[in-house]
Amino acid sequence: MGEPFLVGLPQGDDLLAAVTRSFDERSIRKGAFSVIGLLKKAVLGCFDPETHEYTNREFVGHLEIASCSGNISEKDGEVFAHCHLVLANKEFQCIGGHLMPGSVIFVAELYGTPVPGPVPVRLFDESRGLYLWPAASPERQS
Amino acid sequence: MGEPFLVGLPQGDDLLAAVTRSFDERSIRKGAFSVIGLLKKAVLGCFDPETHEYTNREFVGHLEIASCSGNISEKDGEVFAHCHLVLANKEFQCIGGHLMPGSVIFVAELYGTPVPGPVPVRLFDESRGLYLWPAASPERQS
Amino acid sequence: MGEPFLVGLPQGDDLLAAVTRSFDERSIRKGAFSVIGLLKKAVLGCFDPETHEYTNREFVGHLEIASCSGNISEKDGEVFAHCHLVLANKEFQCIGGHLMPGSVIFVAELYGTPVPGPVPVRLFDESRGLYLWPAASPERQS
Repeated sequence: MGEPFLVGLPQGDDLLAAVTRSFDERSIRKGAFSVIGLLKKAVLGCFDPETHEYTNREFVGHLEIASCSGNISEKDGEVFAHCHLVLANKEFQCIGGHLMPGSVIFVAELYGTPVPGPVPVRLFDESRGLYLWPAASPERQS
Repeated sequence: MGEPFLVGLPQGDDLLAAVTRSFDERSIRKGAFSVIGLLKKAVLGCFDPETHEYTNREFVGHLEIASCSGNISEKDGEVFAHCHLVLANKEFQCIGGHLMPGSVIFVAELYGTPVPGPVPVRLFDESRGLYLWPAASPERQS
Repeated sequence: MGEPFLVGLPQGDDLLAAVTRSFDERSIRKGAFSVIGLLKKAVLGCFDPETHEYTNREFVGHLEIASCSGNISEKDGEVFAHCHLVLANKEFQCIGGHLMPGSVIFVAELYGTPVPGPVPVRLFDESRGLYLWPAASPERQS
């Protein structure tokens, strides 16, 4: 199932795509990760549980990746990364949210680890409006 | 000692209790974890080293779990989770602190991992006013 | 190559030095970590990609370590910790950035894990002005 790894992601790459590819090329379909580094541009999303839509906002300028963590599972047969992050600007002020495509790497150092066992698959959860692992619903837990 | 795991925690559950239970039901008494997701309500604590008391504040509304990390050890013979988090609101602004009981899950995806070796036990540290692992005191390190 | 560990770091110690030493004394030269706790004082850095310099700022007062994560590799033949963090004040407001020497521990609980494989070595990257793992450059990835 692969081994834990530490890797620098290429400058200029999309952060979400680069994280996903790092697991995909190691054939790890269930895992967890964290990243530190610096972005040139960030696109953050915020999910609205009422409308079931993400509001995205683009932040341009160099932003430290103060925290970035997430997990790897499968969606539509593909390796899928779910990732949240906290960014800090030059005044050390923080913003945070869901990592969206379009965030551009200046420096990104990824720690990834496989997780053993059956690969969880994201399915659309009608009531919450998100692609979730079925075990996340209270019915499947009991 | 158990294996690393990835699990969705039930909607509506208390986040701190759900994290604790996830380790407890796997008989993992020493571990580390991170969570991403979305809360309906959060209760954060801030410890005051002068008065040795936590000030708690409740935040109502949907808050992204931008970062959530912590560890598992024993306190009073029970599995105990110590957890800090950073939350982001709809304006992507962050708040952070110590996770208190009363924080309600909308979505929470937990990565947990056991840590090998003797289980650390939290004991009351008079000088700091907190339940800490004895090895954390300078006297025990030397 | 060592095992994952959980340890309390001594009160009064420099956080960056204490994290580095924890890996060094276990002979772990490639790893990842996270920390939660409380600082008495923090020194955060923000890297400017234009000038290639860090701007440091000192924050005095008790600050919760809301998130702290990073990695371990080698620089100049020594164990080197690269670490970013998010801190929260008594109003639960967050600041974040690169952990610099001079940050003083009140409480710090460290989870550390070794990462298998060849130890990455930080070398000066002229174009970005930072000590990076060579594989982080696009040329080495292709």
